Amino acid sequence: MPRAGDEQVTFQPMGRRADPQPGHNLLQLAQNAGVGLEAPCGGKGLCGKCRVRPEGQATPLTPAEKALLGPEAGLGLRLACQTALPQGGAVWVPPESRSQRQVILTSGQSGELELDQAVRAYPVRVPPPSLKQPEAAQERIFSALAAVAADRLSSSPELPFSLLQRLPGLLAGGGDLKVTLRKGREIVDLGTAQEGPPLGLAVDLGTTTVVAYLCDLDSGKLLAVSSEMNPQVPYGDDVISRMSLCAGGPQELSKLSRAAVECVNALALDACAQAGARPSRILECVMVGNSAMHHIFLALDPASLAIAPYAPVARGPVEVKARQAGLALGLEAWLYWLPLKAGFVGADIVAAALAVGADELEEPTLLLDLGTNGEMVLAAGGRMLACSTAAGPALEGGHIAQGMRGAPGAVERATLEPGAASAGLRVIGGQRPVGFCGSGLVSLISCLLQAGALLPSGGFDPERGKGLVRPGEHGLEFVAAPAGATGHGRDLVLTSQDVAEVQLAKAAIRAGAEVLMAEMGIERISRVLLAGAFGNYLDPGEAARIGLFPPVPVERILGVGNAAGVGAVMALLSQKQRRRAEELAQAMGYVELSGHPLFQDLFVDSMAFPGGDA
Amino acid sequence: MPRAGDEQVTFQPMGRRADPQPGHNLLQLAQNAGVGLEAPCGGKGLCGKCRVRPEGQATPLTPAEKALLGPEAGLGLRLACQTALPQGGAVWVPPESRSQRQVILTSGQSGELELDQAVRAYPVRVPPPSLKQPEAAQERIFSALAAVAADRLSSSPELPFSLLQRLPGLLAGGGDLKVTLRKGREIVDLGTAQEGPPLGLAVDLGTTTVVAYLCDLDSGKLLAVSSEMNPQVPYGDDVISRMSLCAGGPQELSKLSRAAVECVNALALDACAQAGARPSRILECVMVGNSAMHHIFLALDPASLAIAPYAPVARGPVEVKARQAGLALGLEAWLYWLPLKAGFVGADIVAAALAVGADELEEPTLLLDLGTNGEMVLAAGGRMLACSTAAGPALEGGHIAQGMRGAPGAVERATLEPGAASAGLRVIGGQRPVGFCGSGLVSLISCLLQAGALLPSGGFDPERGKGLVRPGEHGLEFVAAPAGATGHGRDLVLTSQDVAEVQLAKAAIRAGAEVLMAEMGIERISRVLLAGAFGNYLDPGEAARIGLFPPVPVERILGVGNAAGVGAVMALLSQKQRRRAEELAQAMGYVELSGHPLFQDLFVDSMAFPGGDA
Repeated sequence: MPRAGDEQVTFQPMGRRADPQPGHNLLQLAQNAGVGLEAPCGGKGLCGKCRVRPEGQATPLTPAEKALLGPEAGLGLRLACQTALPQGGAVWVPPESRSQRQVILTSGQSGELELDQAVRAYPVRVPPPSLKQPEAAQERIFSALAAVAADRLSSSPELPFSLLQRLPGLLAGGGDLKVTLRKGREIVDLGTAQEGPPLGLAVDLGTTTVVAYLCDLDSGKLLAVSSEMNPQVPYGDDVISRMSLCAGGPQELSKLSRAAVECVNALALDACAQAGARPSRILECVMVGNSAMHHIFLALDPASLAIAPYAPVARGPVEVKARQAGLALGLEAWLYWLPLKAGFVGADIVAAALAVGADELEEPTLLLDLGTNGEMVLAAGGRMLACSTAAGPALEGGHIAQGMRGAPGAVERATLEPGAASAGLRVIGGQRPVGFCGSGLVSLISCLLQAGALLPSGGFDPERGKGLVRPGEHGLEFVAAPAGATGHGRDLVLTSQDVAEVQLAKAAIRAGAEVLMAEMGIERISRVLLAGAFGNYLDPGEAARIGLFPPVPVERILGVGNAAGVGAVMALLSQKQRRRAEELAQAMGYVELSGHPLFQDLFVDSMAFPGGDA
Repeated sequence: MPRAGDEQVTFQPMGRRADPQPGHNLLQLAQNAGVGLEAPCGGKGLCGKCRVRPEGQATPLTPAEKALLGPEAGLGLRLACQTALPQGGAVWVPPESRSQRQVILTSGQSGELELDQAVRAYPVRVPPPSLKQPEAAQERIFSALAAVAADRLSSSPELPFSLLQRLPGLLAGGGDLKVTLRKGREIVDLGTAQEGPPLGLAVDLGTTTVVAYLCDLDSGKLLAVSSEMNPQVPYGDDVISRMSLCAGGPQELSKLSRAAVECVNALALDACAQAGARPSRILECVMVGNSAMHHIFLALDPASLAIAPYAPVARGPVEVKARQAGLALGLEAWLYWLPLKAGFVGADIVAAALAVGADELEEPTLLLDLGTNGEMVLAAGGRMLACSTAAGPALEGGHIAQGMRGAPGAVERATLEPGAASAGLRVIGGQRPVGFCGSGLVSLISCLLQAGALLPSGGFDPERGKGLVRPGEHGLEFVAAPAGATGHGRDLVLTSQDVAEVQLAKAAIRAGAEVLMAEMGIERISRVLLAGAFGNYLDPGEAARIGLFPPVPVERILGVGNAAGVGAVMALLSQKQRRRAEELAQAMGYVELSGHPLFQDLFVDSMAFPGGDA
């Protein structure tokens, strides 16, 4: 039932609202609300770029959408130019649909985010000294700056030593300069008047993937995006193995730290090359990542993160000169790491919570970042509670006999027609299958449950699975593809043990969510937001069918893309958002599950899959 | 005539007062006033250490003084244990007479300087984290610090990155630590509870000599003093030649800068070796020096100092991480340079003004630092006005045919008995003379004036100088010592040109002082304080006789030793004194003589020596 507030259309994660108007589709509403959507065809239903996920009663799929969206239409994706929400509701805009101009916004009324940059450049005219006023060059710079930025300049401005040393060369006599000021207090760059705009870099340091967003800090425009596999992956797939490596001594920590730092330097270089800029123009850098990535990047010994009580070395925002952390950006650029909440609730979750506006969500909403650790936040009516579950690597394909990452050759979706003797498989890259990635596992298990071949207990049903399951080395197993149809020439099978691993993972996640609900006195959640890549690939119906989270209507399970990256960009472009992230991290409660009295029972209760006809 | 305020005895430069008491000598009064004087013999007139310069009507010289002071008794020096000032007056305590314990003082009522260190160490007990309170190590440090230093800790304390990185190793679990806090805001050191006291280094970077004072920042005690010739001397004796060298390019500036920095590092090492400490324990460094030394040390291009309007690059206090300036002290130690007043009125003058309390002097007092540039401050009733005169190097022995620095072999004092055919010479080191240093020149010219061999115009009088002067290559000259009595086997002569050089120097100094008097509306000065080594060696009577400064009673011309160094130590031990120096530099007026309407005339008027019977 639509609630009173639902009569408006709310674009998320920006939180911008518009009143539905007869004859206006979502693309037009988005434009009214100042939300920029990619629409190179001008809204004619030809390009298929304006994809959104409406939440609520939408108008039916059009033929153009069926043609352009293909199977994705089944995942709740729609084209904004073909869709209306007559009764209002939320519309989630994935990052790839946002037009570059407004993902990161201009400012003022038509933007999604009010610009409030920490770093701003001012052109100044510095007078020469005279015998009557033989003022020092430093004083003349400060006076000239006060003339143009009086309202922003602190009473005790600072000029770093390296820039003081550069001053005589730049300012032989008087001259026109461009002065870049940070937080109204510290000059972080001095250049000629012709110098280009100051740039900013937002980095999401994921365990697997590192993404860097380069922005023009004058206009707020996104100039380039560059991403790369985390070069720490060869040292261990997950944070636990990397933290173990660091226990080997400071040189090991230093090696891993260096790898991540150099990766960010390379991404900055690449993004600058795309934008035709120099990395030395990057005068502010914001980073997010989980607590282990945070510690290792900053060369803070992560040992205490790995053992109870999982206390970080630093939890509040870390703000250091970028060069001190090894970054090759502007010489006086600062690096700002968003705060962590706890040892296993990192800056990435804080950033994701910022991106979806968790502090302002009214309806009980579960924000879930699925990975080796299922980190999650339950938000409702301004309250937020977070936890982290040791879900294990099953949902990333780990500990699965033929599991793999979401790479070419991985089964990402499965179908099982009633009575069919084998499964229909969608494989990344379209080639022959060689393994299962997380979304494929969830999909296949969901099909097997629906077909009755898999029992809620997690055991294969030899009766109903007849022709589908066979005895394997360690109990029954399901043959998803025979040797002749696979890429590696062996049968592709799902074992009983694989199913048990997925059960462990989903039980941990669901039990975690239920502990949060119990702690907050919430009986029913009304929305699930899946952050991160995995969340985007997961089919909401299938996820619900295996019981990955507490019951929630399928259309209210939404992928929100790289919310952590979006949060990092928000904090780069706006000091208000930075403070909001800090307040949000403070306000967010945290439940340590390992000592929680309810967790163990809920975990055991959650092992079973929902009844076969769920 | 003693004025009302003169009934007290005031010990300078500390400014501590005591009432004269019948039967109490100056040593006892000093002890009452909390002024520590060296007196290993316990005040029995045996050791000769408690030397002071009383200003006013003192009791007559005792036989013990005559024996222990020798010719220095003639310079106004007295032994405090042998002297009383029944009618009050000022007593100047040279640095070498101050007892180490109180040169730099303990604190409280018995000290001369109230300690108010920027840097303080606190022992803290840091609790381990718990599952209930899994606080970050950084937060636990801050909480533990707040528990012991609540009244001093800022609301937003800072932990530098290098110390954050060291935290996990120091704080595995909980533990007892010593935390060193700067200005209540930044932690500058973390160590075990057993770590010694934080140390501080005050450095007077002179053009010729560099002196470093190592202090215990807990007690304020002076632990060691180390000094060395400025290693820039081989690149040029004076600041002008060194600045010219810097004009050769950044690598030349860098070379000179490096030389000075390494000299300070070597002095720190030596002082620490004397005190049995490590340089890494030095957590605060204060420096003073003239504007050229300041710029070159900090690798700030001094070009603008050398040309009108002589604007410095930075004038206010420069506060940078010591390591950024190249100093090898504590990793997070700060370097604080006292402010400059102008291009040729440096931090050394500001420090000297602080040391003598120029901002609180009532009677018109001229503080003079004699060197290549005669820098001076006229202070009266809280007002201060400074200028710098291009005195030239004559008073340092430069541009003098047989001039030299005050090194062994230099004539430092001359006497000329009436009717004698040659001068009596006192030579540094007691050897045969090889040249004249500044004080020797002044002394000799004074004798020649008194004997009438030199006319007030500066020309030798062939009549009255008969037997003393002879024709030389460039006019008349005086033979101070014949070839047979010198160290180099040549006649030691004072030429007419030498006399002219001294006239130029003294005219510039005196004219500068008179401009200051005119600007301040002061007709008569009542005291001259001579800062620096030269001031200590100069005979006040002789200086007055050549007219080096406006007329002032001879007993009111006082050497105040290395006042700049004392000022640096004061700023090291007390933030109040540091602020006072900053305020003093602000409050001090500055007159640029090169454009001043009175200067040229006064300079010409001052060329002549006072009448021969002056």
